[in-house]
Amino acid sequence: MAKQEDLFKNVVSHAKEYGFIFPSSEVYDGLSAVYDYAQNGVELKNNIRQYWWKAMVQMHENIVGLDAAILMHPTTWKASGHVDAFNDPLIDNKDSKKRYRADVLIEDYAEKLNQKAEKEIEKARARYGEAFNEQEFVTTNARVMEYKSRNREILERMGRSLGNNDLEDVKALIEELEIADPETGSRNWTDVKQFNLMFGTKLGASADNAMDLYLRPETAQGIFVNFLNVQKSGRMKVPFGIAQTGKAFRNEIVARQFIFRMREFEQMEMQFFVRPGEEMKWYDYWKQTRLNWHLSLGLGVTNYRFHDHEKLAHYANAAADIEFNFPFGFKELEGIHSRTDFDLKAHEQYSGRKLQYFDPELNENYVPYVVETSVGLDRMFLAVFSTSLKEETLEDGSTRTVLALPSVLAPTKAAVLPLIKRDGLPELAQKIVDDLKWDFNMAYDEKDAVGRRYRRQDALGTPFCITVDHQTLEDQTVTIRHRDSMKQDRVAIASLRQIIDSEVNMRHWLMKM
Amino acid sequence: MAKQEDLFKNVVSHAKEYGFIFPSSEVYDGLSAVYDYAQNGVELKNNIRQYWWKAMVQMHENIVGLDAAILMHPTTWKASGHVDAFNDPLIDNKDSKKRYRADVLIEDYAEKLNQKAEKEIEKARARYGEAFNEQEFVTTNARVMEYKSRNREILERMGRSLGNNDLEDVKALIEELEIADPETGSRNWTDVKQFNLMFGTKLGASADNAMDLYLRPETAQGIFVNFLNVQKSGRMKVPFGIAQTGKAFRNEIVARQFIFRMREFEQMEMQFFVRPGEEMKWYDYWKQTRLNWHLSLGLGVTNYRFHDHEKLAHYANAAADIEFNFPFGFKELEGIHSRTDFDLKAHEQYSGRKLQYFDPELNENYVPYVVETSVGLDRMFLAVFSTSLKEETLEDGSTRTVLALPSVLAPTKAAVLPLIKRDGLPELAQKIVDDLKWDFNMAYDEKDAVGRRYRRQDALGTPFCITVDHQTLEDQTVTIRHRDSMKQDRVAIASLRQIIDSEVNMRHWLMKM
Repeated sequence: MAKQEDLFKNVVSHAKEYGFIFPSSEVYDGLSAVYDYAQNGVELKNNIRQYWWKAMVQMHENIVGLDAAILMHPTTWKASGHVDAFNDPLIDNKDSKKRYRADVLIEDYAEKLNQKAEKEIEKARARYGEAFNEQEFVTTNARVMEYKSRNREILERMGRSLGNNDLEDVKALIEELEIADPETGSRNWTDVKQFNLMFGTKLGASADNAMDLYLRPETAQGIFVNFLNVQKSGRMKVPFGIAQTGKAFRNEIVARQFIFRMREFEQMEMQFFVRPGEEMKWYDYWKQTRLNWHLSLGLGVTNYRFHDHEKLAHYANAAADIEFNFPFGFKELEGIHSRTDFDLKAHEQYSGRKLQYFDPELNENYVPYVVETSVGLDRMFLAVFSTSLKEETLEDGSTRTVLALPSVLAPTKAAVLPLIKRDGLPELAQKIVDDLKWDFNMAYDEKDAVGRRYRRQDALGTPFCITVDHQTLEDQTVTIRHRDSMKQDRVAIASLRQIIDSEVNMRHWLMKM
Repeated sequence: MAKQEDLFKNVVSHAKEYGFIFPSSEVYDGLSAVYDYAQNGVELKNNIRQYWWKAMVQMHENIVGLDAAILMHPTTWKASGHVDAFNDPLIDNKDSKKRYRADVLIEDYAEKLNQKAEKEIEKARARYGEAFNEQEFVTTNARVMEYKSRNREILERMGRSLGNNDLEDVKALIEELEIADPETGSRNWTDVKQFNLMFGTKLGASADNAMDLYLRPETAQGIFVNFLNVQKSGRMKVPFGIAQTGKAFRNEIVARQFIFRMREFEQMEMQFFVRPGEEMKWYDYWKQTRLNWHLSLGLGVTNYRFHDHEKLAHYANAAADIEFNFPFGFKELEGIHSRTDFDLKAHEQYSGRKLQYFDPELNENYVPYVVETSVGLDRMFLAVFSTSLKEETLEDGSTRTVLALPSVLAPTKAAVLPLIKRDGLPELAQKIVDDLKWDFNMAYDEKDAVGRRYRRQDALGTPFCITVDHQTLEDQTVTIRHRDSMKQDRVAIASLRQIIDSEVNMRHWLMKM
């Protein structure tokens, strides 16, 4: 656990030091749970977005894109259920004036029971093989079972109470468990209240004629309200999909874990419209297809797992997460939801307009069912970045930090380094950059010894370093060094484009799906 | 003028019919001055953004990217001057309860005087060459001069009053000119009030601990607050630039002209940091370089002109617009501003932190000066789209609608059409799509006669149509039809990738800069 925390701290500081992620408005001490993508971060983020777009839109004839606005007509959020039900249960401590999510306080308490159980198990395992008496084993096991069952009971009761909107019982539970303010230890709590997570704003100039708007809390509704316009103008036939990437906003009370849960974040979503009754077939199809997309990046099969939801949201008849092994454990990276016809029907009801599709094969009209795939782009960034960051011990005993990004996503594809700063080597290196930069993001670096320059590019995730030396002047060859293997080859300048392309081209990566 | 209005209506309806732009939340009757980019619009918009990014970031070693959040610490907007001075002067009609921009009411009045003058001139011109007495000429000319001088006086007085924030005189002017509510004719006006154009929202859960935030009204400040973090982590040396694309929001009271002035819009901005005293050199450089970028798209030299600002914003010591010939006349497409050290110094003052650069060549610290280039992405879209939309009369007397987009920006690069729907032609056509879609956005279309399919692709702006016929089965050749010339060539399937690439590759277009 301590090691995981160190790793995570390392991720955050590497992201800042090497120009991937800065706290937002840092000169003003930052804005909580909002981050900016810096010069290398923006390239990595753009590359992830393009890798998704290419796989989802360009490669599928029956999926098209969309870019709906962040501001939408407010009735949209009434129809979707967000105005009435997109809430967090909050509780204030009367002494400290600190505000908390009541469910998170309870979950944290329950998690501690879990951790106690895990510790007991670990202790017992460490002594496995030693002589210890049977009675001790039995006692330990009883304690573990006790912790686990209390954990389960607490979470179940909380789930029930929240499901019934019985906020009094949520407070009662906090009091029974004697949960204290984590910062001050006070147990002087207010009642639990529901708080809507949407950011509100006002359109128009005066109080009396202003319209209450929301910053969209999800991109999905932009697709649903455009469904018929896209279907008609694009002459789409069911089954077909509409894909979209874009910002969404949630006024999270307790946002944490770096870019994992931010107040402003970006989604990559696809809504797939199918015949009613065929949704489970497509649900299974998209679960597998989306997992294959993740696997194509080569971050390791064991870093992914499915988590099928037992409790379903009001709009879904099946739902699963693709979870990823983040530095703080397995957490949701992508959701695949079978959303039925809930959203389209709700928009029909609130708008008074038909949102039906005429199926020429069946010769009938219906409201399609929808299967959604939804990845957090920032979470995807964190997954790729944290898994790629490695400390390696080399043969000579020294260590290096390498950001072993999938080369298709790397911000810079190759750095060109003149061995020394004279004899025409810088000019020749610059010429190579100028030629290759039409096709790839390139870097030029002439400062410090070549070894240090290699390390710098390793830490930035650059797949190739190309070194120009005196031999280059004679025979137009350079050395090309591979980031991961550190192997160096002598190759002709004329072959560089082909060598780099064969490694970083999206085609080669997507073919693995 | 009537013809221009028709053209503009045509642009709006073509954009909707062919899946480029829909009104936002149209099922709820739309949200005023907010639009969604539909399946073809999103591709065109993305291509414009990438064309800009490639030219600005990838091709310039000393320019790096950034993706700052929309939400920023509120002191940012105090420092930038937006909290105090980003206002529109508003006036309400007491009878109709309608709200107007006072400056727009006055400008519209002044513009009518201008139009009267133009009409007199036109009338006189039409009679030029005819016999008409000298007295008539003198009288007409006097009227024209009178209209023009009143127009000038009105605008000057308004500019003075607004500059001095003398809102009483703005109201007095409206009353003196007897300006009436354009919708009802009433002259029963309230006082003029300043209204801040930033959208506000609140971060946090309760009234007492909530923080007032704004949706950024421009992307520039995200670059300024990150200036030192980027410079240090990227080891940048002055002169260098930071480029960014992203959404900005303005609570415009009167937003109009389709996507030209929206409440939610996207900017493509670059801030170039230079030595104090060298800013005019770089200002001239970027004016020319940005114009060349626009010209590389081949929309026509005469569609662009510079407009040098006489009145400068408080932060600028030089400013020019690149104006484009939109369907409603020449209007700002891009701004190039020499912003001095105003922004960085303001952030130093409000944050108490140094935002200085150490110049190793001069061996001194200074706050850099800044030259900004700022294009509206949506305006760029409108410029490209409206200029490309053409009605052509063909040799046989029939007409066609063609969207002659620069092929580098076209949403779909090629459509593959089987001549008929049997004999294995659809399968072969599909195979060509499957091969080429790794590299290009492709379409497949088998519905209707080939002539109609050509027309459809013309209207979508697709540069190439590839037709598969019976000869294809024998010799693996197809016909490739060029959208603009409508010329058809017989070529080998194996040569298609090369033919398409040579036309749509960004390299070939950017080389024209």
